[in-house]
Amino acid sequence: MAGDPQRLGLYLSDCRSQVQDEIRALIPADRADTGGLYRLMLDYPLREGKGLRPALAMATCRGLGGPLDAVLRTAATLELFHNAFLVHDDVEDGSELRRHRETLHQLHGVPIAVNVGDGMLALALRPLLENVERVGLGPALNVLDVVTTMARESAEGQALELSWVQENRWDQGDRDYVRMVYKKTAVYSFVTPAVVGALCARAQAQVRAALSRFAVPLGVAFQIADDLLNLAGQEAVIGKESCGDLWEGKHTLILMHALRTAGGPERQRAIALLGQPRADKDAAEVDWLLNLVHRQDSLAYARDVARRYARRAAVSFAGLARWFGDSVHRDFLEDLVDYVVDRTR
Amino acid sequence: MAGDPQRLGLYLSDCRSQVQDEIRALIPADRADTGGLYRLMLDYPLREGKGLRPALAMATCRGLGGPLDAVLRTAATLELFHNAFLVHDDVEDGSELRRHRETLHQLHGVPIAVNVGDGMLALALRPLLENVERVGLGPALNVLDVVTTMARESAEGQALELSWVQENRWDQGDRDYVRMVYKKTAVYSFVTPAVVGALCARAQAQVRAALSRFAVPLGVAFQIADDLLNLAGQEAVIGKESCGDLWEGKHTLILMHALRTAGGPERQRAIALLGQPRADKDAAEVDWLLNLVHRQDSLAYARDVARRYARRAAVSFAGLARWFGDSVHRDFLEDLVDYVVDRTR
Repeated sequence: MAGDPQRLGLYLSDCRSQVQDEIRALIPADRADTGGLYRLMLDYPLREGKGLRPALAMATCRGLGGPLDAVLRTAATLELFHNAFLVHDDVEDGSELRRHRETLHQLHGVPIAVNVGDGMLALALRPLLENVERVGLGPALNVLDVVTTMARESAEGQALELSWVQENRWDQGDRDYVRMVYKKTAVYSFVTPAVVGALCARAQAQVRAALSRFAVPLGVAFQIADDLLNLAGQEAVIGKESCGDLWEGKHTLILMHALRTAGGPERQRAIALLGQPRADKDAAEVDWLLNLVHRQDSLAYARDVARRYARRAAVSFAGLARWFGDSVHRDFLEDLVDYVVDRTR
Repeated sequence: MAGDPQRLGLYLSDCRSQVQDEIRALIPADRADTGGLYRLMLDYPLREGKGLRPALAMATCRGLGGPLDAVLRTAATLELFHNAFLVHDDVEDGSELRRHRETLHQLHGVPIAVNVGDGMLALALRPLLENVERVGLGPALNVLDVVTTMARESAEGQALELSWVQENRWDQGDRDYVRMVYKKTAVYSFVTPAVVGALCARAQAQVRAALSRFAVPLGVAFQIADDLLNLAGQEAVIGKESCGDLWEGKHTLILMHALRTAGGPERQRAIALLGQPRADKDAAEVDWLLNLVHRQDSLAYARDVARRYARRAAVSFAGLARWFGDSVHRDFLEDLVDYVVDRTR
């Protein structure tokens, strides 16, 4: 059965409300004399996000026969980690909007935002330690190991992209892009939640490996689709600035394709624009760049690549079938494949 | 026997070279294709620091009879955590110098500095997981728990101070200062290394509690002495800007005392100056503020408070004697009491 977006939406919102309750239990928001630290920690998690990562962990665990109790707190912890990194990413990328509201550093300044992110990271570790009692020692240590690797891969991916930005380098091929996105998105948002969910269900290493083969191409497809949305979506729908990626000079597959296929003078003009600090960029020039992207048919190119990765994920999913019985959890995982490329927000 | 600064210096430099070798082994600095991430992670740890925290962990473990092997990697990990937080703290405080060189964000920009700090935090977790094999499951989980608490207390202390800065509040009493410094310095730099060292030696809870009673007042005395050095020390010796605390408007016991005891008009003038962003501050006004601090005898006041806390630490140390045999490690711990208040850098 092909992906059912409504069914997927219901599953997501169901998980999200459970995860939000759990996050409220993890963060003592009313605690006095901490300079408002915990209140600020709750800001991003309670904004309307998709909650894809915790839902993926929950669906994997439950689809493999694990109980909700074994995974819920850990899923909430992943969401807390994710929001901590979003706070830091927004500082690093100079982003202005996050989920329809101003970013935390815009609201409270960079110092407070950096510290709130650090506090969230610290807070997210303890529930993982408590997993020893919840899922047993082996899986608990394994979860910690997977989350540690995630944090490291994510910092590597971010460093790679920041170095490209700093050097204003635009000569990378699709392979470089995929390598960066593997670290920044696939491991972080797809492989880790799926594997953590499997560990909470005490699944064998073989199942976890098969889940990785499913989650990696899914993550790459998701990121390319995300970049497409940024250029094609409307601000009111996606909750970030439209064309924010062009203003930030973000290294997307789309923009890399446009620069690679454009003629020399246009490429030079684009690179000169992208090398300017955001505040110095001219709106008319950003429009021109968006135009170039359209003329080079880079959106269609990127859409094709995203579909190719989604197909790979679909093939890998078929290999997972024998470990998953029929359930709403399994349906969610299958629906994800179409969702990541077809979503509108 | 009173503290012997030369003996202490030798012990510190001995620990430092062992810890630096260990940190070099932890950070794959030559790893390609990571945007220089690991090379930047090594920057702060290899600058000439005191290495007080790892030395404290090592001395505690070995003084309690634990082998070097049981503690060295964990001590290096504490130093890595510490340097990660320094990178973020420097961003948060807008500091310009760290250990005689420009801060990381001055050299490479805020985005890269925030990410390097995150990467160091991620890298520091794995050796703690490997402690399960090194010191056994119970102590290893306990170390993770203590480090998690440290990260959380430290974020709370930082949040408290940042909220004071943001509101330009100067009506706190010494108790508020001590509460903030307990979180920011005592738990972070003294209690955690000592307790972690004890855990690596598989010491009982009773010993760890006694070590905390020693480490808390030691940490408070250390921070007050640090603030004194900032105002009285010379830049070339302390490796930070002289009077940087006044430029940053840092909430020190000294400055709080000066403002509390000064007359209304002077207090108003000081608060107006402290509320300005660093770049807008006038050098002549900062000089005037330093003068006010001297006129109010706030340095002497703070020195007295620091000595009082150091005496408390000395009394607590006497209570530790029965668990420590005679050793260079025990001597180091005892020497620390005088060192924290008498040091010149």
